[in-house]
Amino acid sequence: MKKVRVGVAGYGTIGQRLADGVAKQEDMELVGVADVAPTLPILALKEKGMPYKLFTAAPDKVDLLKERNIPVSGTLEELVESCDIMLDATSAGVGAENKKLYLKHRRKAIFQGGEKNDVADVFFHGYANYEKGVGQDYLKLTSCNTTGLIRAIDCIDRSVGVEKIAVTIIRRVADPGDYHRGLTNALKVDAAPSHQALDLMTIMPHVQATGILIHTPVTHGHIITAVVTPKEDIDKAKLLELFSAHPRIRVVRIADGFLGNASLFKYARDLGNPRGDMYEIAVWEESIVMSGRDIMFAINIPQEAVVIPENIDGIRAAMKMQLTRETGTAATNKYLEMGKWLS
Amino acid sequence: MKKVRVGVAGYGTIGQRLADGVAKQEDMELVGVADVAPTLPILALKEKGMPYKLFTAAPDKVDLLKERNIPVSGTLEELVESCDIMLDATSAGVGAENKKLYLKHRRKAIFQGGEKNDVADVFFHGYANYEKGVGQDYLKLTSCNTTGLIRAIDCIDRSVGVEKIAVTIIRRVADPGDYHRGLTNALKVDAAPSHQALDLMTIMPHVQATGILIHTPVTHGHIITAVVTPKEDIDKAKLLELFSAHPRIRVVRIADGFLGNASLFKYARDLGNPRGDMYEIAVWEESIVMSGRDIMFAINIPQEAVVIPENIDGIRAAMKMQLTRETGTAATNKYLEMGKWLS
Amino acid sequence: MKKVRVGVAGYGTIGQRLADGVAKQEDMELVGVADVAPTLPILALKEKGMPYKLFTAAPDKVDLLKERNIPVSGTLEELVESCDIMLDATSAGVGAENKKLYLKHRRKAIFQGGEKNDVADVFFHGYANYEKGVGQDYLKLTSCNTTGLIRAIDCIDRSVGVEKIAVTIIRRVADPGDYHRGLTNALKVDAAPSHQALDLMTIMPHVQATGILIHTPVTHGHIITAVVTPKEDIDKAKLLELFSAHPRIRVVRIADGFLGNASLFKYARDLGNPRGDMYEIAVWEESIVMSGRDIMFAINIPQEAVVIPENIDGIRAAMKMQLTRETGTAATNKYLEMGKWLS
Amino acid sequence: MKKVRVGVAGYGTIGQRLADGVAKQEDMELVGVADVAPTLPILALKEKGMPYKLFTAAPDKVDLLKERNIPVSGTLEELVESCDIMLDATSAGVGAENKKLYLKHRRKAIFQGGEKNDVADVFFHGYANYEKGVGQDYLKLTSCNTTGLIRAIDCIDRSVGVEKIAVTIIRRVADPGDYHRGLTNALKVDAAPSHQALDLMTIMPHVQATGILIHTPVTHGHIITAVVTPKEDIDKAKLLELFSAHPRIRVVRIADGFLGNASLFKYARDLGNPRGDMYEIAVWEESIVMSGRDIMFAINIPQEAVVIPENIDGIRAAMKMQLTRETGTAATNKYLEMGKWLS
Repeated sequence: MKKVRVGVAGYGTIGQRLADGVAKQEDMELVGVADVAPTLPILALKEKGMPYKLFTAAPDKVDLLKERNIPVSGTLEELVESCDIMLDATSAGVGAENKKLYLKHRRKAIFQGGEKNDVADVFFHGYANYEKGVGQDYLKLTSCNTTGLIRAIDCIDRSVGVEKIAVTIIRRVADPGDYHRGLTNALKVDAAPSHQALDLMTIMPHVQATGILIHTPVTHGHIITAVVTPKEDIDKAKLLELFSAHPRIRVVRIADGFLGNASLFKYARDLGNPRGDMYEIAVWEESIVMSGRDIMFAINIPQEAVVIPENIDGIRAAMKMQLTRETGTAATNKYLEMGKWLS
Repeated sequence: MKKVRVGVAGYGTIGQRLADGVAKQEDMELVGVADVAPTLPILALKEKGMPYKLFTAAPDKVDLLKERNIPVSGTLEELVESCDIMLDATSAGVGAENKKLYLKHRRKAIFQGGEKNDVADVFFHGYANYEKGVGQDYLKLTSCNTTGLIRAIDCIDRSVGVEKIAVTIIRRVADPGDYHRGLTNALKVDAAPSHQALDLMTIMPHVQATGILIHTPVTHGHIITAVVTPKEDIDKAKLLELFSAHPRIRVVRIADGFLGNASLFKYARDLGNPRGDMYEIAVWEESIVMSGRDIMFAINIPQEAVVIPENIDGIRAAMKMQLTRETGTAATNKYLEMGKWLS
Repeated sequence: MKKVRVGVAGYGTIGQRLADGVAKQEDMELVGVADVAPTLPILALKEKGMPYKLFTAAPDKVDLLKERNIPVSGTLEELVESCDIMLDATSAGVGAENKKLYLKHRRKAIFQGGEKNDVADVFFHGYANYEKGVGQDYLKLTSCNTTGLIRAIDCIDRSVGVEKIAVTIIRRVADPGDYHRGLTNALKVDAAPSHQALDLMTIMPHVQATGILIHTPVTHGHIITAVVTPKEDIDKAKLLELFSAHPRIRVVRIADGFLGNASLFKYARDLGNPRGDMYEIAVWEESIVMSGRDIMFAINIPQEAVVIPENIDGIRAAMKMQLTRETGTAATNKYLEMGKWLS
Repeated sequence: MKKVRVGVAGYGTIGQRLADGVAKQEDMELVGVADVAPTLPILALKEKGMPYKLFTAAPDKVDLLKERNIPVSGTLEELVESCDIMLDATSAGVGAENKKLYLKHRRKAIFQGGEKNDVADVFFHGYANYEKGVGQDYLKLTSCNTTGLIRAIDCIDRSVGVEKIAVTIIRRVADPGDYHRGLTNALKVDAAPSHQALDLMTIMPHVQATGILIHTPVTHGHIITAVVTPKEDIDKAKLLELFSAHPRIRVVRIADGFLGNASLFKYARDLGNPRGDMYEIAVWEESIVMSGRDIMFAINIPQEAVVIPENIDGIRAAMKMQLTRETGTAATNKYLEMGKWLS
């Protein structure tokens, strides 16, 4: 079978990880990545010996790359032409601009959470609405917090039904290595409801969701606490059973040393994961408590890599590689070795 | 009328503020404070010219104080004898030891949240169960998060009734100037339910409470998000009305520049409050959202000073200075100028 | 004697403290402060009952203030007319704009470190070049790090002479309450030499200075380590003697509990200083070491308030209130109670 | 040729990286690692499928491992017997205890910086005193800051000679994932001189060294500023030439995006280094400045992995695999691919 040809526009925090994720899919071919300048990720790509071909998204600035002896395989437009589908991980707003190119060459594309919803035909999540993306040209993926949260809520919803949720998003304010944004000794409160709650309702319109987002000065993973009102009763044992069986959810224990988001970051490094990344969300077993019929728990969202699996799902749906949620996510999970910890 | 004579044991973060708070009560006399060594607060007390008399809680180490030319007015035991009631703000566990002295001299005492519950006859909160403390010998106050949370929940409960709450406590991990504890670039999850939820149920047994506590690497105030299930319906306008009328709750707006806990710390400094302290909790107007019939909001807890008013209430109750919640808290509020912002 | 009439433009972190500092000078009159919008400091000013008169620097936006019932005493231009000298603590660049108004009304002014040097006739430091400012119309003060550093280097220079210095500036990245800038879990290196070293050489041209600046994610005071090459030999005992006698330098000991910048912030709060501010720099006794003939030590710079005394000195020099460094700084020190800890 | 058999005692932050480093040496065999409990690194080892054999250092607690289905290949004592040399990366003080076992079985061992100097025959650094370690039984390695600093100072010393240095160590206070130590919004000053300066003089007794250490609340690398007094004159160009040619020193530029320690951490992750580790120190080109004849610059020390190469050098010296500094470090560098960025 012919491999689906994929390109990545924007080789930053998300773009690098999308490229790595695609490269692991045996039924896809990573044609190349595109960026504009010799940023640190591009310098690292060169130092590694150019495992991925680089295309320039700013042909007028190609000299900046050539001065550093960085091989350039062509332009972004040439990359687009050579691909069946583009993953657009450029800065917010650039994707909408790039879409003109995708339209011109009639290529499909997947946009990230930073773009406006109207850039795409479908607001997509691999587990929650895979079928809506099947055969579509333009998908927009949910952002990192929403992606992780939906995994957990969809998992409960498919078992006992979810009526409503109220979440507190304790957001990491910057990624490791970020110097363009930050917060020092302060918590910051956003006006409620948080966009993650609203986004969840767009994907899962039968659930009523609200939430408050608080920024915290850390870099290793958001933590969300969720108060979930189920349709049918659910208890801690049942919730643990559901989460433990989910290939993109890792159940961890404080008693084992998973004390917080930084433990999970450390653990992923110790696992030898590329870049120390983690695709799965984690739920702390000891955080699960009942509040009347409601159930409350805390999730860890590894913000740098959590959206990669659902992006790959998006390729599968858009390209009709698999036609159902079960087969699509299963293929992604196989190549990304999701749930390996269960064996 | 004869002033009630009050002593403070332990002149640390809480003890200093208790002394300041008592000194403001025109119907109380601060006899003195007791500590053991020339710590920074004691050195500051000396540099200020000894506005409060210092007693030594470790007579065998009094030379440490005398070497620094710090005047010592006697021993802790002598302080106890000279007082009607002691506020014990020593480190956790020392209060239980000190109680022997209080019993020996038949003096009343108020202990802080760090002591075990059995040190006291009543677990006390000025607004929630004032009458239970009236005439009692030994009270234990709730800790900072619980004190602030109860103010808000009690306020709702007295209007529409509260059935249950689920809280997320986003805890500041250390006070400004603390070097003996800290957290660096990490969020830490505690096993649920948090002790604050359990403590609230001890004080307000008719409310069902649970919660998750997450430690964050900041020093300027805890933030709690609460999901409250009321008995009678309540909406945002009604909640704002209740909170706005409460002399120990300040309603603030993100739009005015109150962006988070650090804004409130800054504001209290700009107000010229002693030490830049703040006695009141704050609620962000823009954080209030409905989740079905439940109402959700975010509170700021200024951990260094929030318990001072309820401690003063405790003196009033134990010493029968006022016999009711309304009169007791009103007296405290008057001298601490609580709610001055409402005028 | 007629008091010198002083106005403050810009009521932010520095402007608030300048106003407080001027208000303490018995030979000066604080006519008022000017700002543009109901920021948190302005809201606090109102809540305190308007101890200072407020003038609007943006008459077209005066409704924003009136809507909040904040009394406005006139315009910035009217404030300028009513004053002998203005302290300009507006954001960088605005001072140069305001200068037109000062020139129009032939009023003297003092600018802060953020303005370009050419805004002023003299780049000024009360202890290092007081006489250069005497009778001048426009002074620019050194920024916080440079002000504190010069205090220490000038102190050594006047005793044994200083040939050269190499400093490492460990910079706090934001003030408490700042949300518009920050750094999270990162140290940031600036290109050397740091501007503080260059600025020092402008004020003290006979000293050769260089240095490296590193930003750190904290809010409570810069720390500078200085390696000083003296002209005549100096040892630790002599240095301690010099610093201990300086009314704007506090010698502290780690052994007493002054463990770092946060201890000094805490101590100033415990002293009951307005806003918990500290005007003096601190030197850690245990940090002083010899490197051959060079002497090395660490200084704490309380960035929010450290420049206030030298600004007051600037008023004295520009207005010819005192004609010499000794008399000018002595008057400032008296009213600010500098060196009170020495008694 | 027979491979040298190496064991690692203590599988924590350093132990894990020592094991990885040894595993890359084609002339060594990693026999196994020893630890006591199912810590996160051990759980990760199991999840990876036990690429290294695990021995128990606490046979009485072996059930804790077996309960988790973690295969145990024997006891620490059995590991010691099976090895030619042990790398001891246990907690400070445990190494001295373990030495009894090494002596009993007449096995060589290398201890880390946390142990006392008298645990070893030689205080060792691969580049500064390789020959002193040749054939010795017990070596102690320098700690992370000292190891990195000596690389730079030794590099200068071998070219132009170093008379003295004065360093400011801006120390990261915890590693990513550490919850047992931390600092929040504070800089902490240690009594000078720092132990790193004293340690450097033990290894390089002809250099006079002093320094001040300041702890900062970050996790991604120490930064040291060094003021170096050379014997012969040296300028920036010459220093850059020396550092650029050193296989364990990476020269980086702020202009390229290397803004601080977090940029280097990010870059190592983007390079795909195992765990995102970095063995080399980095020097910022734009940090280099002259202070008279002295030269000043800033170094980045990646604290988790920087000591690995010198530990491997230690094995080579102790086991007489190579008899000279040049050949010993060259072999280590080859297998660790040090200086790959130079090609």
